[in-house]
Amino acid sequence: MKYGFFDDENREYVITTPQTPWPWINYLGNEDFFSLISNTAGGYSFYKDAKFRRITRYRYNNVPMDSGGRYFYIKDGDSLWSPGWKPCKTALDSYECRHGMNYTKIKGIKEGVTAEVLCFVPLKTRAEVQKLTLSNSSTEAKKLKLFSFIEWALWNAATDMENFQRNFSTGEVEIEGSTIYHKTEYRERRNHYAYYSVNTAIDGYDTDRETFMGLYNGFHEPQKVLEGKPGMSVAHGWSPVASHYIEVELKPGESKDFVFVLGYAENSQEDKWESKGVINKTKAKATLAKFDSTAKVDAAFDQLRAYWDKLLNVYTLNSGDEKLDRMVNIWNQYQCMVTFNFSRSASYFESGIGRGMGFRDSNQDLIGFVHQIPERARERIIDIASTQFTDGGCYHQYQPLTKRGNNDIGGGFNDDPMWLILGVVSYIKETGDFAILDEMVPFDNDMSIAKTLFDHLTVSFNHVINNLGPHGLPLIGRADWNDCLNLNCFSTDPNESFQTTENKAEGSKAQSLMIAGLFVVYGRDYIELCKVLGKDSEAERAQAHVDAMVDAVKKYGWDGDWYLRAYDFYGNKVGSKNNKEGQIFIESQGWCTMAEIGKDEGMCKKALDSVKERLDSKYGIVLNNPPFSEYIMEYGEISSYPPGYKENAGVFCHNNPWIMIGEIKQGNADRAWDYFKKICPAYLEDISELHKTEPYVYSQMIAGKDAFKPGEAKNSWLTGTAAWNFYTISQYILGIRPQYDGLLIDPCVPSGWKGYEVTRKFRGATYNIKVSNPFKVSKGVKELKVDDRKIEGNLIPIMPAGEYVVEVVMG
Amino acid sequence: MKYGFFDDENREYVITTPQTPWPWINYLGNEDFFSLISNTAGGYSFYKDAKFRRITRYRYNNVPMDSGGRYFYIKDGDSLWSPGWKPCKTALDSYECRHGMNYTKIKGIKEGVTAEVLCFVPLKTRAEVQKLTLSNSSTEAKKLKLFSFIEWALWNAATDMENFQRNFSTGEVEIEGSTIYHKTEYRERRNHYAYYSVNTAIDGYDTDRETFMGLYNGFHEPQKVLEGKPGMSVAHGWSPVASHYIEVELKPGESKDFVFVLGYAENSQEDKWESKGVINKTKAKATLAKFDSTAKVDAAFDQLRAYWDKLLNVYTLNSGDEKLDRMVNIWNQYQCMVTFNFSRSASYFESGIGRGMGFRDSNQDLIGFVHQIPERARERIIDIASTQFTDGGCYHQYQPLTKRGNNDIGGGFNDDPMWLILGVVSYIKETGDFAILDEMVPFDNDMSIAKTLFDHLTVSFNHVINNLGPHGLPLIGRADWNDCLNLNCFSTDPNESFQTTENKAEGSKAQSLMIAGLFVVYGRDYIELCKVLGKDSEAERAQAHVDAMVDAVKKYGWDGDWYLRAYDFYGNKVGSKNNKEGQIFIESQGWCTMAEIGKDEGMCKKALDSVKERLDSKYGIVLNNPPFSEYIMEYGEISSYPPGYKENAGVFCHNNPWIMIGEIKQGNADRAWDYFKKICPAYLEDISELHKTEPYVYSQMIAGKDAFKPGEAKNSWLTGTAAWNFYTISQYILGIRPQYDGLLIDPCVPSGWKGYEVTRKFRGATYNIKVSNPFKVSKGVKELKVDDRKIEGNLIPIMPAGEYVVEVVMG
Repeated sequence: MKYGFFDDENREYVITTPQTPWPWINYLGNEDFFSLISNTAGGYSFYKDAKFRRITRYRYNNVPMDSGGRYFYIKDGDSLWSPGWKPCKTALDSYECRHGMNYTKIKGIKEGVTAEVLCFVPLKTRAEVQKLTLSNSSTEAKKLKLFSFIEWALWNAATDMENFQRNFSTGEVEIEGSTIYHKTEYRERRNHYAYYSVNTAIDGYDTDRETFMGLYNGFHEPQKVLEGKPGMSVAHGWSPVASHYIEVELKPGESKDFVFVLGYAENSQEDKWESKGVINKTKAKATLAKFDSTAKVDAAFDQLRAYWDKLLNVYTLNSGDEKLDRMVNIWNQYQCMVTFNFSRSASYFESGIGRGMGFRDSNQDLIGFVHQIPERARERIIDIASTQFTDGGCYHQYQPLTKRGNNDIGGGFNDDPMWLILGVVSYIKETGDFAILDEMVPFDNDMSIAKTLFDHLTVSFNHVINNLGPHGLPLIGRADWNDCLNLNCFSTDPNESFQTTENKAEGSKAQSLMIAGLFVVYGRDYIELCKVLGKDSEAERAQAHVDAMVDAVKKYGWDGDWYLRAYDFYGNKVGSKNNKEGQIFIESQGWCTMAEIGKDEGMCKKALDSVKERLDSKYGIVLNNPPFSEYIMEYGEISSYPPGYKENAGVFCHNNPWIMIGEIKQGNADRAWDYFKKICPAYLEDISELHKTEPYVYSQMIAGKDAFKPGEAKNSWLTGTAAWNFYTISQYILGIRPQYDGLLIDPCVPSGWKGYEVTRKFRGATYNIKVSNPFKVSKGVKELKVDDRKIEGNLIPIMPAGEYVVEVVMG
Repeated sequence: MKYGFFDDENREYVITTPQTPWPWINYLGNEDFFSLISNTAGGYSFYKDAKFRRITRYRYNNVPMDSGGRYFYIKDGDSLWSPGWKPCKTALDSYECRHGMNYTKIKGIKEGVTAEVLCFVPLKTRAEVQKLTLSNSSTEAKKLKLFSFIEWALWNAATDMENFQRNFSTGEVEIEGSTIYHKTEYRERRNHYAYYSVNTAIDGYDTDRETFMGLYNGFHEPQKVLEGKPGMSVAHGWSPVASHYIEVELKPGESKDFVFVLGYAENSQEDKWESKGVINKTKAKATLAKFDSTAKVDAAFDQLRAYWDKLLNVYTLNSGDEKLDRMVNIWNQYQCMVTFNFSRSASYFESGIGRGMGFRDSNQDLIGFVHQIPERARERIIDIASTQFTDGGCYHQYQPLTKRGNNDIGGGFNDDPMWLILGVVSYIKETGDFAILDEMVPFDNDMSIAKTLFDHLTVSFNHVINNLGPHGLPLIGRADWNDCLNLNCFSTDPNESFQTTENKAEGSKAQSLMIAGLFVVYGRDYIELCKVLGKDSEAERAQAHVDAMVDAVKKYGWDGDWYLRAYDFYGNKVGSKNNKEGQIFIESQGWCTMAEIGKDEGMCKKALDSVKERLDSKYGIVLNNPPFSEYIMEYGEISSYPPGYKENAGVFCHNNPWIMIGEIKQGNADRAWDYFKKICPAYLEDISELHKTEPYVYSQMIAGKDAFKPGEAKNSWLTGTAAWNFYTISQYILGIRPQYDGLLIDPCVPSGWKGYEVTRKFRGATYNIKVSNPFKVSKGVKELKVDDRKIEGNLIPIMPAGEYVVEVVMG
């Protein structure tokens, strides 16, 4: 069952019923002011940090779901309705929500009145603009009463929902003209305020929630709206809100625009006040002036669309498969950018409170967006590397507002360091910017002990070889990529977090085959980089360690039909046929086949066949099999989930691409493509009622074959799945892969494919690449021509700026 | 305006409209299973620790307020209603809520059907019993569809509302007969489960919230209730709930009882499972068997009432003033007990997440309930003292589940140690149990460095004299009793807590006159105790320090018309007429007049007159004057509140009794009595629409004269205000005061009073005390007779068990 459709031309997903199986959301903003918006206009806004600078209040997991947002109430005689159906839930004559690139349009029609809201955060603007258009298509004049509504969060999203003893006494607002200013705690240590305004004179307002809403009324029936008259309330403590009241008259056929702006501003300490107790509003007014007319808003919206045109034109595909095209050209790239911008912090599954930016996550996200905004990738790399320690380890996360490492989350995830090599190498291959390697980057944010970024890569590499276990395999530390495989944790107390409880590292034999494979893959990247830089002796030194790791995996990491997953604290095998449960895991099969360890001995093929046999399912490849039916103290959180969910044998979409790439390394395009389609959201649109989450973006997890409800997805939007799938489809299946010295064309596609076209901007040039497959092969380039000039091999060298036609014949 | 009335005979407050100005709540349970219940049946339950063992889900500060609870839906043809009005909000023909002593009865009548719910936690029971009685008073047979509903919390109240990435995948239930078991995370590290049952066969159930409720429905309109048919859902992840469905037929005049039980059980590791994956339900079944009939429930309810009869019969008053009598006999004592049981952790203003048991708080709470349950006071004293450090300092709070000090909240509040003396002395005076002083009590919970409780008192005393500032006054440390006066904090970052941010203690001159007075008051208690114990040299040593403190206060703590509040970090005066704002504070006036420092010099009288002139207001005595209009970095949180609220010139009710006692030390009964009535809730019942919070219990704070809305109260229920006011009225105004060697009779009442009667149980004897005031004095006992036998002075010595008539003539 579908709840809407893709409008590819407009790059929109169009939702045609408000009652989706889960709120389907979109993200506004792409720099420092961000908003979530659901298909019924629910959601919230924040500035930079979803925990410390929450602007509006939102209640997660509420009854009803998706409570709180930018709400408009339209009172038309006895009818009371909202353009997005919620919160009023009055049946509409027509409803439509269009989620586009960083904007959302919601349109409701009721009894001859059309209300359309366009929400977006203009470029370089610390505000969400909401253009509300009211039109009268009836034959009679309409007198409407319009109420806006948002609820202010008292800045810190965590204490906002915990510390009422303080919060109920601190709320403060100012009202000036049509603007409601939220200034709670501005009197003390805050230098920032928020505001909500409309570009017309208002007929009233409310700023005290209880006055507006009534203590016992839900969002669907605010007291003042029911009464049809604002309360003119001025909030002092309790819960400040912002509601404008406007009386609107519309002649038949008439249409009026109202531009609402929800903004955030910071003042310097000296400029905080206009007069005693009165905030300096200069910055807010400057922003409001920029969006005080429909024309200005429309122009800003055009700029936003142009911005996305540019971002999405770096890599475009014409494959003839509209589902694939819309993922590659629009939604997968969009999700990568959003994931980069929000770095896991805010979704319906992430309350924006518990976590900062992940070291591992951010490096992987990078491979999904580096071609779009390399300059921001560069900045992110420096930020991440700055939280590394001198021994190569790092804070597992850092706070976006301060860019400081976050001790609350802990460290010691021994896979973390190697991801930095992936991030840096991907960035340089995209840009050719080797100079980044000479940047002085602090350790633990301490500039006095800074070294070059290249040195950071070296300590990353060394961190693995300095932390080897008894089999010469990498010690796992707190965990590797699978945060839930906690081999040194031994937790018995349900009140302690698996991620921060003290580890029993002393004497541990817990080693990870996943890190082993990861080390070989990015160790080779490190070696290649050293060679390119002429650091031959370092390359040689590294090669010896990589070779030793390959040997160790073959000797101690092979279980007969697949790679082991790990050794536990005691040195027992994890992910072996001799185990009762958890006999085979996906991660080590992915990384060891990506590293092609034992390929000649047939290990890779055998392992991948075992994945197919044991882990594959209708809805994707599950993480492990059989699932754990009981808690195993020496395995930790992984065994805490019910079978089929999350890390305990769920389809954890992030790691499925590793198998796809492993298959591609074997030349098995058909299997890789089959795996790709199974989890790719556009292909799942028809089963939305089961899948539940948005059909335009990946979810982190789909319930696995052992689950109660296989195929049901969770944790959509902010997941490394987006980057890995884009990386896989664009660079490994379609095979357009940046190298230091050019653009490699290395397709690996189902043999039935006739061909496809990709336009790729790369290092200043634009390549219009036409791949044809007349010989029905899966792999191999027989001929490569650039502007009719034949090129040996399959690497397009770096070309001068310009546009080129590239013809590729597979065979 | 009133929203109900006091039913003193039944010890109930009867609420006659569901739409109170704020949810008015009651507390169920008095040992380890606790529930909050509002007048519309909202609230939640927990076991011991409101953070770590939350049993049912509740959404604080929601829209609408008070969302979630033990809800019953009654479908009578097309009518759908709830006995407590919410959540359906269907207008009822009649509504009544009776909040009694640890029980609540809610009754709704609609179209000839009466639904009455009695909720209580039986003694020694880890369950809330809900007896629902449905009666048909119409002339026709009724076929009703009854749905119950509660929503399970996934145990940890904080992560339950933050970590959805995990939570949505972990939920698990079992359904057996009429019992729904909640066993999320039982598969792993938890050894406890919850259950919800009814003592009759059911016609269906739901355990998955989305199935029962529908994704877009509020609590007022669950999908399955609207459909009139249960979904028979079995929760796997998402949000598990428990709903029973029962078809009820009632003949005209017929009545049926249904006993619902919401319980909690723990199993030992060996006994966790009945069979693989199936929990051992033995304990739940045992509890259910105890309450499987109306007769058993009624018997348990009678036991609970008898328990409260006993508790409340220790001190009873007949004054002729019904408001005073109901406070002293019922509500103030009840609030003291509830505050002891919940120790600040759970209310509409405390989310049960941020805090544990306070060192300072718990010692003060003790003076409100020690006469009722001395054996639990003893236990609490040992728990508290065990978190002390060897230098006398302590963890400011500890977690009730572990009894371990809580580092998250910090320490260094330099008033903390002295409160232990108050707690211990009060306990011994009540009980005569000097043996407690010989108990070996650990420091920082380390038994290897335990010392006697008496030694703990000595280090408490010494902590003050070891931490004196340049004027010989006590250094304030992080803060004294006023958590918000942060003289060493200098915080500029809004993301840091004033209570835990690093203090600049080094070189600080910040000294507290409040601690000085506190030290003199409880230092003298310490000296008295030493003398009673024959430790004369220790008494002498202590006396010298107390004398020195008195001198220091007179020399450096007097501002001319009142006592200074403090010296700040730099040595500048705080609370002086030379300050721009915050010229006078209540705390030092309270403690220095209680200590009678400079009484002979007229300081006490002057200070109290200044309080009357500068701090008194219609709604009580404000904390400081003038309020701070701006943030002062060297004062901290106090200046962060808007003027008139909380610690910035609010009526902080906790400290008003200090002034009352100060006045009583001066013999000013009229003023003390006037102050008492101003904040005493029973006297505020008529202005409930302004006061907002419950008229039967104290609130922590009433908005002060400088506030936007003076008289509006916040933070009701769990406040030291309860203990201090009971202590003041019972021991200082009515003047019945336990001493080591007897019961002192020392009234200080308005001269217009004719007399009053108090029954006081004390050390095994019962005293029926009749105080008469024929000479219209305020103070002084002219004659004291026990069983017609005249006694010199005003101390009743310890008497053998038995009942005595005590006649007291003032004069």
